[in-house]
Amino acid sequence: MLQFFQEIKDELAVVERELQNALQTPDPLLTETATHLLKAGGKRLRPAFSLLGGKCFNFNLERILPLAVALELIHMATLIHDDVVDDAQTRRGKPTIRACWGNRISTHVGDYLFARSLIIIARYDNPLIPRVLADTSVKMCEGEIQQISGSFTEDQSVRDYFYRINRKTALLIAASCQLGAVACGAPADIHLALRRYGHYLGMAFQITDDILDLVARQGQLGKPVGSDLRQGIITLPVIYALEQSPRREYLKTLILSREKDEKQIQEAINLILDCGAIEHSAAIVRKYVFKAKEALGVLPEKPAKNILGAIADFIGVRKF
Amino acid sequence: MLQFFQEIKDELAVVERELQNALQTPDPLLTETATHLLKAGGKRLRPAFSLLGGKCFNFNLERILPLAVALELIHMATLIHDDVVDDAQTRRGKPTIRACWGNRISTHVGDYLFARSLIIIARYDNPLIPRVLADTSVKMCEGEIQQISGSFTEDQSVRDYFYRINRKTALLIAASCQLGAVACGAPADIHLALRRYGHYLGMAFQITDDILDLVARQGQLGKPVGSDLRQGIITLPVIYALEQSPRREYLKTLILSREKDEKQIQEAINLILDCGAIEHSAAIVRKYVFKAKEALGVLPEKPAKNILGAIADFIGVRKF
Repeated sequence: MLQFFQEIKDELAVVERELQNALQTPDPLLTETATHLLKAGGKRLRPAFSLLGGKCFNFNLERILPLAVALELIHMATLIHDDVVDDAQTRRGKPTIRACWGNRISTHVGDYLFARSLIIIARYDNPLIPRVLADTSVKMCEGEIQQISGSFTEDQSVRDYFYRINRKTALLIAASCQLGAVACGAPADIHLALRRYGHYLGMAFQITDDILDLVARQGQLGKPVGSDLRQGIITLPVIYALEQSPRREYLKTLILSREKDEKQIQEAINLILDCGAIEHSAAIVRKYVFKAKEALGVLPEKPAKNILGAIADFIGVRKF
Repeated sequence: MLQFFQEIKDELAVVERELQNALQTPDPLLTETATHLLKAGGKRLRPAFSLLGGKCFNFNLERILPLAVALELIHMATLIHDDVVDDAQTRRGKPTIRACWGNRISTHVGDYLFARSLIIIARYDNPLIPRVLADTSVKMCEGEIQQISGSFTEDQSVRDYFYRINRKTALLIAASCQLGAVACGAPADIHLALRRYGHYLGMAFQITDDILDLVARQGQLGKPVGSDLRQGIITLPVIYALEQSPRREYLKTLILSREKDEKQIQEAINLILDCGAIEHSAAIVRKYVFKAKEALGVLPEKPAKNILGAIADFIGVRKF
């Protein structure tokens, strides 16, 4: 993905410095824990999308910088709480905050990063920025709760799945693209087009993630293959296979079992692959990629527009 | 405390209805968990202080209502995360969300309530309201982290203690008093006086809480006596006793021990009581109560002003 960020390399370096600055606190323990995940790296996708969104209009780094920092803080806060919730040991190849300091510290550090983002957002006079981010945050929580209440249950439609991945992934990417343009003073037709682009791209991105969880080669993902199946999270290829596989009753038993061994995970994956669920899901990714690129149509001809289009094409074929 | 809220009884009932409405969601599990703590009751102190703050100027319920609801949502979010962090089984005499649904749900429900408060706050055009609340939220997290890193360590000054209880308790009460007036359009001299009042009152309130944790009769608190000692939280009477008790070395050993039995807890309490730590702490409460009432001086003569004064007097003598 990084090849697309050449255009905004310098700006991303400034965002990185500002993220570091934002997490310097009077308490050494708090500074250490808050910067722990930051130091583990990450692609800074959301800041990057906000910068590219801004570059589709009258780009102004100073105006966009607080937003870019806040977006990454919100994202990091959700990751830290997700690691508490999932008892995760590693994240981005490093031990998680909860693995190093326990759940008590992690819960508060996640809250802290989120609250820090609010201070930064409160600098904006345009009320659309805090409003969109507040709305996005609420919906992200709704998605998380729905993912938990829906895990290990067969009764899930494609509609439930789209509802959930929109909240889990697409909304914050849509907000990043949109608000980058909003921060630079773009009119509604431009920032709403960017929002649509971000929505479709985020959906394509998450479906691809869910496909890769089943088909990636070991070691390619930074997490074990089949981790969604282990957690009972029902993704698009699974929903398709539960409808279409000739052995769907047996597959259901495998998927709903909370105690699966590695052999059963592999068996379930094979059944999902055999019925064409991956091809079906990949076709849906292509539809979203098409819609994402279509949304770019109204934007002025600028390099950033072409980069966003190229990112969409890349999502459709990415293997990592 | 409830006798003081007679003046705002009707408004508090409206706040209660709005809180209920704010937590109706499309997901039954989310609605049930989010309203669980609300149904357990609680004094709604922060909404009450915001109403009383507003009643010190040109009171307007419609303008103050979103704030009052948001303050209680923020408070509830911190309680839910505190219960995760402390493995708490009961809160307000009822099983906690984490006891009923586990840590995963509790973490997300806490995040959800906090995010809901942001949507409500984003309705205000006056940027002071989101700014004060964002700043308060960050500092509350700092206080929590400091409480954890400072627990079971003797090296704590009275200054550390005041820093911590300001963040833990006083800041949100100060913000409630202040922003109630801000929402009603009060000028700076009035809302800043209310903020000072809330700060001093909150400090007096928390020190009293910390005294009662040592001297209340069993059953009076809704939690066991000495629970701070059990958690290694070093409060004002303890800091005083660690300096002044003739048996301070032995007391230190008792307090720093992570595995205390009931006899040792009682022994530590007796040593703290014997050296006059309670009288010393109560004298500090009286100073804060005096300063709280002094801060009210500049406010116009209205019933709410007298009620705030009476609440301060009550804090100085409360036994529950």
